Amino acid sequence: MCRLLAYLGQPVLMDKFLYEPDNSMIKQSFEAKEIEEPLNGDGFGVGWYHKHITHQPAVFVSIYPAWNNRNLRYLASLVQSDCLIAHVRAASVGDVSESNCHPFHYRNYLMAHNGGVEEFDKIKRSLKDRLSDERYLWLKGQTDSEHLFALFLEYLSAKKADFTADDVADSFEEMIVALKEMMEAKSITAPAYLNMVFVDGERMVGLRYTTSKEVKPLTLYYSEGSKYVCEDGVCYMVPSEGSDKSVMIVSEKLTDIAQDWKTIPDNHMVLVYKDLSVKLRKVEV
Amino acid sequence: MCRLLAYLGQPVLMDKFLYEPDNSMIKQSFEAKEIEEPLNGDGFGVGWYHKHITHQPAVFVSIYPAWNNRNLRYLASLVQSDCLIAHVRAASVGDVSESNCHPFHYRNYLMAHNGGVEEFDKIKRSLKDRLSDERYLWLKGQTDSEHLFALFLEYLSAKKADFTADDVADSFEEMIVALKEMMEAKSITAPAYLNMVFVDGERMVGLRYTTSKEVKPLTLYYSEGSKYVCEDGVCYMVPSEGSDKSVMIVSEKLTDIAQDWKTIPDNHMVLVYKDLSVKLRKVEV
Amino acid sequence: MCRLLAYLGQPVLMDKFLYEPDNSMIKQSFEAKEIEEPLNGDGFGVGWYHKHITHQPAVFVSIYPAWNNRNLRYLASLVQSDCLIAHVRAASVGDVSESNCHPFHYRNYLMAHNGGVEEFDKIKRSLKDRLSDERYLWLKGQTDSEHLFALFLEYLSAKKADFTADDVADSFEEMIVALKEMMEAKSITAPAYLNMVFVDGERMVGLRYTTSKEVKPLTLYYSEGSKYVCEDGVCYMVPSEGSDKSVMIVSEKLTDIAQDWKTIPDNHMVLVYKDLSVKLRKVEV
Amino acid sequence: MCRLLAYLGQPVLMDKFLYEPDNSMIKQSFEAKEIEEPLNGDGFGVGWYHKHITHQPAVFVSIYPAWNNRNLRYLASLVQSDCLIAHVRAASVGDVSESNCHPFHYRNYLMAHNGGVEEFDKIKRSLKDRLSDERYLWLKGQTDSEHLFALFLEYLSAKKADFTADDVADSFEEMIVALKEMMEAKSITAPAYLNMVFVDGERMVGLRYTTSKEVKPLTLYYSEGSKYVCEDGVCYMVPSEGSDKSVMIVSEKLTDIAQDWKTIPDNHMVLVYKDLSVKLRKVEV
Repeated sequence: MCRLLAYLGQPVLMDKFLYEPDNSMIKQSFEAKEIEEPLNGDGFGVGWYHKHITHQPAVFVSIYPAWNNRNLRYLASLVQSDCLIAHVRAASVGDVSESNCHPFHYRNYLMAHNGGVEEFDKIKRSLKDRLSDERYLWLKGQTDSEHLFALFLEYLSAKKADFTADDVADSFEEMIVALKEMMEAKSITAPAYLNMVFVDGERMVGLRYTTSKEVKPLTLYYSEGSKYVCEDGVCYMVPSEGSDKSVMIVSEKLTDIAQDWKTIPDNHMVLVYKDLSVKLRKVEV
Repeated sequence: MCRLLAYLGQPVLMDKFLYEPDNSMIKQSFEAKEIEEPLNGDGFGVGWYHKHITHQPAVFVSIYPAWNNRNLRYLASLVQSDCLIAHVRAASVGDVSESNCHPFHYRNYLMAHNGGVEEFDKIKRSLKDRLSDERYLWLKGQTDSEHLFALFLEYLSAKKADFTADDVADSFEEMIVALKEMMEAKSITAPAYLNMVFVDGERMVGLRYTTSKEVKPLTLYYSEGSKYVCEDGVCYMVPSEGSDKSVMIVSEKLTDIAQDWKTIPDNHMVLVYKDLSVKLRKVEV
Repeated sequence: MCRLLAYLGQPVLMDKFLYEPDNSMIKQSFEAKEIEEPLNGDGFGVGWYHKHITHQPAVFVSIYPAWNNRNLRYLASLVQSDCLIAHVRAASVGDVSESNCHPFHYRNYLMAHNGGVEEFDKIKRSLKDRLSDERYLWLKGQTDSEHLFALFLEYLSAKKADFTADDVADSFEEMIVALKEMMEAKSITAPAYLNMVFVDGERMVGLRYTTSKEVKPLTLYYSEGSKYVCEDGVCYMVPSEGSDKSVMIVSEKLTDIAQDWKTIPDNHMVLVYKDLSVKLRKVEV
Repeated sequence: MCRLLAYLGQPVLMDKFLYEPDNSMIKQSFEAKEIEEPLNGDGFGVGWYHKHITHQPAVFVSIYPAWNNRNLRYLASLVQSDCLIAHVRAASVGDVSESNCHPFHYRNYLMAHNGGVEEFDKIKRSLKDRLSDERYLWLKGQTDSEHLFALFLEYLSAKKADFTADDVADSFEEMIVALKEMMEAKSITAPAYLNMVFVDGERMVGLRYTTSKEVKPLTLYYSEGSKYVCEDGVCYMVPSEGSDKSVMIVSEKLTDIAQDWKTIPDNHMVLVYKDLSVKLRKVEV
């Protein structure tokens, strides 16, 4: 079912998320804790920004498991960024191929997804029919995740160029409305699970949602403070005393330090603005 | 632009096509002779049948170059089949991923393509709109080749269940008609190159075609005889004296033995029937 | 710690071992039952013989996990052999690379290993010093397994050309003696676990051993009968009534059918002769 | 035979070497100009330093060809470093595996090689016998290149901890002396080609050498100036006017701009010191 992480704030070494915490992303790739199926070995991906060079992110994906990947080990030790996203995959819809690895990249945006739409094949065609040629042709892979991202992008592209985290959140909601319509049209009643994170280098939005009232969405937490640090094998969020803020969104708690992790309430979004202020917002659809 | 080979007839070891001839498929993967761009290093694929086990073929594809592939080296030394197909890829449309490797497999059919449709993105959407849900959802990759195969399959699926090589040829022609319509609708004038081979374990059809009258189609040859053998480093087709027939279709001559290779005339198909009889047929569209 | 399987007998489709049983090799790749660490996702390998073509086996290895491998899925559906070996790897010593994947191939022999030598680096050099140039240069990878196989091959190569399963068993014992000497010289006291299978297309030997008296060797079973079949989702060994024999050696029981699986006693070998007769033999070192 | 590049100086984006020049490293991967065999498609590697984070480099290698590698394309667009090394491989000795990809990494050093030792197997064992346990166990792959690097490291490790480019050059010479001894002992007369670059983040040495007086070493150039830039599709070295120096070593000229490329004379080394001053030195062995 995948595990994900997104971060925006003070520059931090990728190592602090991928390798150092007790329940690091790498740990989650072979032994995730907060989900029934502990194995996320069908490829992985990381994306990050160096805005002093370009607004475009770099993405590194692989169809090998994350846990024994020499290239990732090296990268994590030298990539220091103020905005990044990471994902380990358990393939549900779609082959194990690079074009099915998260995060997906469109313009200067990155998106990763944890969850899925049951019987996605039933709505795939109607979803694609809703896409403009630009997004239709941008699609490369087979996953429900990438298709949902394309649908979301249709709505986001209708916003003003200098959009805010609220516009991103609105686009998520419009995507959900469209998805529910399509599911209903095909009588799909199994819940769709939509935990998604969006970043563009300057803002970040995390969605924790499921289409069914009968079930809980998958876990999603956020953490905010001054900076995420690891010292003597202990990783924690330094409390913020002012403008030096950092925010992280994770599928699973990276550590047992309880105060570091706040649950995003069921069917809510966490919005992180350009000034790094944070707002919770209910999904109103 | 890719190189391909298809074979139907007496059981033969894959080695005889892939490694042993002077201008073997492996040789063509790094130094093709009869095409401008000699490099076909963007993955490869082989497919073969063991009809005494099942009518379904096996397919082995890889996104590594064919020339240094240990697995392929081993396979070729032990796979002996009466029907096989091989392809080395030079990526034009689509990433280097397994789902873009030829041959493509649908039911018990295999298809490989050498050529391409310029500005394929312009017609991709209208092509997919012509597909039934079954073929629409069957599509996995990004190539023009796989999309054309899906279109061809629409026509083939309308034939009788026990179709003949002529039905396959008809379906190729219907695919061409549809392609030309779509190209015209989008004012694509650059020639599409369509060298394609189809096998189903019992019949084989090769197409050598281009949509433009102004240019020549890419090279395509066939060879027929009793059996393809390699002795003391010399590979040749043993002349047939009766029912023990074998037919091969190749993008390039595998050797300099002139009498082994007959050119398929421009815009023609070669049809190999279940009884291994061979017919040339002009593309009448 | 890896899981392995070896088979000698009536021709059988690879599918019957890799995919069809409840606890198939593929199942063991992500959820092994009879070992502490259930994950064997660091590559895999299969080897098989078609003796009517050549005495040399083919080997197919991959550094991807076995559970989602399209090529393996296809291969297993068409490879039917009277002698094969399969292995899923959990990397302990050595990178995840093709040259570290089992089975290892030397001449017409294949060998796979489940287990390991603690602190192998301490004896690597002295082990290699014991090798003839031929075996020294044959070594390609980094694993303790391949090095132990090379050492074993030194002893086997000293036997008569037409060696028997007993000669293979003797060579395993000589390898163990040498290993213990080297471990002692370096004061390595942690137990080495040596579950190994050897095949050459005509005979098969399985070793279940650990260097320490204080611990149990890893699990290893064998099964004998007429043929291994799967019908309506149930896989079982058909009892043999005569010369149509088949023998299988496995790290884990493939099914819950108790009578199909006999435990190889601690520190014993199972020897399968050219006539497919089976003998248990204690490791006397 | 491989192609390589090394750089030390002002921070520069990897793109400027890998993709932007007319004869970029990527171009050289499929169509090298200054060598008989134009294809370098058997994997690649890049290494780079961010000394403000750590003295250890990161290395990214792949066994896919460089020309269609999405991860490399992304990396090159965001990695900006003052010291880097890049290599595209044409496999001669050793499989296509990650452990055979250059650059090789030991402590904070990186080394890449273009060339080879004929009949390397004949001296492999005696070379390894000369290594201390540390370097013996550090070796992971099969290439002559990595083994020569290990030998070189024996000599370098005997120098003072704060060694200079001259110490590196001395170590190259000692490595050559040892190699020649071993070749002579085994009557290897075919010339060994040794174009090698060494960096440690602060100094760089390039060696252009062959063991035979009868043949020319492979091509090797260097370029020095203030900074390497690409503007409107034209890449060039900006002349230096003071302390803002940069130096590059390449197998092939990246452009046709003649004044940018100085030939390293036959059997010479180019030494780049910590202060970025440059010296040519004859190999005196």
